[in-house]
Amino acid sequence: MLQTYSNSQLKEREKQLEQQFKVACDAGLSLDITRGKPAPEQLDLAADLLSLPGSDQFHDDHGTDCRNYGGIDGLAGMKALFAAILGCETRDIIVGGTSSLTMMYDSVVRATLFGVPGGDQPWGQQGTIRFLCPAPGYDRHFEITGHLGFELLSVDMTDEGPDMDRVETLAADPSVKGIWCVPRYSNPTGITYSETVARRLARMSAAPDFRIFWDNAYAEHHLTENHQPVPDILSECRDAGNADRVLMFASTSKMTMAGAGVAAMAASPANLEDIRRHLAIQTIGPDKLNQLRHLAFFRDINGLRTHMTRHSEILKPKFALVQEILERDLGGKGIATWSNPPGGYFVSVDGPQGCARAVIELAAQAGVKLTPAGAPFAYGLDPQNRNMRLAPTFPPMEDIRQAMEIFTLCLELVAVRQRLSHG
Amino acid sequence: MLQTYSNSQLKEREKQLEQQFKVACDAGLSLDITRGKPAPEQLDLAADLLSLPGSDQFHDDHGTDCRNYGGIDGLAGMKALFAAILGCETRDIIVGGTSSLTMMYDSVVRATLFGVPGGDQPWGQQGTIRFLCPAPGYDRHFEITGHLGFELLSVDMTDEGPDMDRVETLAADPSVKGIWCVPRYSNPTGITYSETVARRLARMSAAPDFRIFWDNAYAEHHLTENHQPVPDILSECRDAGNADRVLMFASTSKMTMAGAGVAAMAASPANLEDIRRHLAIQTIGPDKLNQLRHLAFFRDINGLRTHMTRHSEILKPKFALVQEILERDLGGKGIATWSNPPGGYFVSVDGPQGCARAVIELAAQAGVKLTPAGAPFAYGLDPQNRNMRLAPTFPPMEDIRQAMEIFTLCLELVAVRQRLSHG
Repeated sequence: MLQTYSNSQLKEREKQLEQQFKVACDAGLSLDITRGKPAPEQLDLAADLLSLPGSDQFHDDHGTDCRNYGGIDGLAGMKALFAAILGCETRDIIVGGTSSLTMMYDSVVRATLFGVPGGDQPWGQQGTIRFLCPAPGYDRHFEITGHLGFELLSVDMTDEGPDMDRVETLAADPSVKGIWCVPRYSNPTGITYSETVARRLARMSAAPDFRIFWDNAYAEHHLTENHQPVPDILSECRDAGNADRVLMFASTSKMTMAGAGVAAMAASPANLEDIRRHLAIQTIGPDKLNQLRHLAFFRDINGLRTHMTRHSEILKPKFALVQEILERDLGGKGIATWSNPPGGYFVSVDGPQGCARAVIELAAQAGVKLTPAGAPFAYGLDPQNRNMRLAPTFPPMEDIRQAMEIFTLCLELVAVRQRLSHG
Repeated sequence: MLQTYSNSQLKEREKQLEQQFKVACDAGLSLDITRGKPAPEQLDLAADLLSLPGSDQFHDDHGTDCRNYGGIDGLAGMKALFAAILGCETRDIIVGGTSSLTMMYDSVVRATLFGVPGGDQPWGQQGTIRFLCPAPGYDRHFEITGHLGFELLSVDMTDEGPDMDRVETLAADPSVKGIWCVPRYSNPTGITYSETVARRLARMSAAPDFRIFWDNAYAEHHLTENHQPVPDILSECRDAGNADRVLMFASTSKMTMAGAGVAAMAASPANLEDIRRHLAIQTIGPDKLNQLRHLAFFRDINGLRTHMTRHSEILKPKFALVQEILERDLGGKGIATWSNPPGGYFVSVDGPQGCARAVIELAAQAGVKLTPAGAPFAYGLDPQNRNMRLAPTFPPMEDIRQAMEIFTLCLELVAVRQRLSHG
């Protein structure tokens, strides 16, 4: 425990760490653990996609010529696959283009311009609009609603989802129009939403045009065999008499080719009808050949899940290495806690209050790029300046090892200096 | 000339045509010449795409791994290809997803929510917004601006583009924010914009946030060897000191696979910077594998143009057949005029005033589906109710022959009846 160190012990430790830091800087490294990108080895698993659907293969099971125009909401087979991923019915699904983030952006934009079922007016005509941002969370979610000029309201994340007492208090204000959620292996803390959180989200008092953006980005991205179930928010909302409250999203981006996958959403019949009405103006239809390509590759949900176990075999050693170094270098020192996620793409580290920015700057000096401090918070501002997000999927093992050793070194050095200056 | 027929001659002709019509109805046909879709034979020309880019082929010429995230505006090679199509520089291009229509919709939505360079305010905060719709034109263009609640102002089409006297008068009103243009082989009349029209569009007085939507949908879709050049509107606007006035669009949808092609836009540096700023929120980037697939298929603009001559070889006989039957059945009767387009996807027929809806209804009774009357006009309303759009690309020759014979029969029958009732 650093807290038990005397002043001279702290100074001694600072000296050691500074020497190590100098050695690290002299090594001239250039490492990056900032972004949740799949590694090339993961992409290699989907190599067959590069020559699919294959010559003369352009009809789906229903005889649709997937090369031509038509079909606003996707192939039946692709809908069925996403229904299995999202835990709903085929009829609940709209298949989109390559990006679920774009489907979310477009959904927010539609609500802003046209409103949503249950609302009297477009969001954009209701004065100041507010949105709930459970933090730490996914920066690109928050950026969408920030870009549109909504006021972002931070809500603390707990081990089972957002702090629901706070959410219920805030959502009672009719100017609050939605909440961003990553229900499984949440970015970055790795937690999965509990049944209780989902039930409270479904049942709480909120504006009739309030929407839960339920981004199940890591629906099939396990790192253990023990899969905690994701609450069935669509049924919860229906049972609560708030069927239109939730929009669910998923994509195959981190299953096949990132940025060249297939995305989809699921919602109530009224929401789907409303969305299709607008989609019919925005598009002639999504890329059916890419859907066919993915169907040929996965075949069905069992094929998809087998494929995802291959992903986890690649990722498990990387996440284990992160844990090993965190435990070895920081364990028992009382200066940091961290997540050990059973799935997803991130490890979240909480250092001493007020330290995150300094740690990330130091690491940058030693050639290790970390996600900017505050990124997982509304307006990019971590009120405690203590959270750091690690993304170990993309780099090779040796890069992770080096980057993690510099990260823990920098974190301890900043913590020691903080204690010295407080002393 | 029907105009020279006596009443009894008209009655005799009506009887003949009614008998033919009855025969046609009894045949129980079901034919469709409504939509500008490529024929399966055209799609077959791009069959290689179905197994491209091919195993282990996922890097572009610059070494980008096209399977992973990144790159907001497209591969350099794809930009170069679209620059050649649109007659501009590679740096002027943003590559998008599969659909240029979606890029146009998104551009209108962005202007509505955020405004555009040169404008003081978002379009959506400027009260009633108006948009110029040269008619007959492309229904899906008009629907975008109609859906967003803009007031649509019709402008007559001439043989060299929209009636520019009218356009200049209307555009002087700062509430008029844009115009829809298909500069080459315009949908449906097949005309190409003249240099004079382009120059006047570039130089006229208009709001600083006025935008020309220059949809070069048929840039490479020739039906003759004689290619009338498309005016260089981007340079015209720049030279006129209105560099930001135009947004150009194109796609490969009707070159490779409809709905699974690649789309792009081109604009001034200020417009591009503004668009990229918003795109960075809406997407992590377009499908680079589909771009790589198309680059592998076309190689360069010469490959693309060779490919498009194969398309024209399939389409020429279809368009020739339409002309043959129009001429044979209606020639010299003084009841209709029609286009003989040197490219594009449509033939436009003007019948007697007040007749189009009746002709299309009669044809439907005989099992021939035509584009709804008025579709090519703002609000779906042809003020003269005389224009009919034929789309002969998709059906096989024999279907076109049968459909055209019923179409000319119905047109003449309606014309004869009109003369009788006017007599």
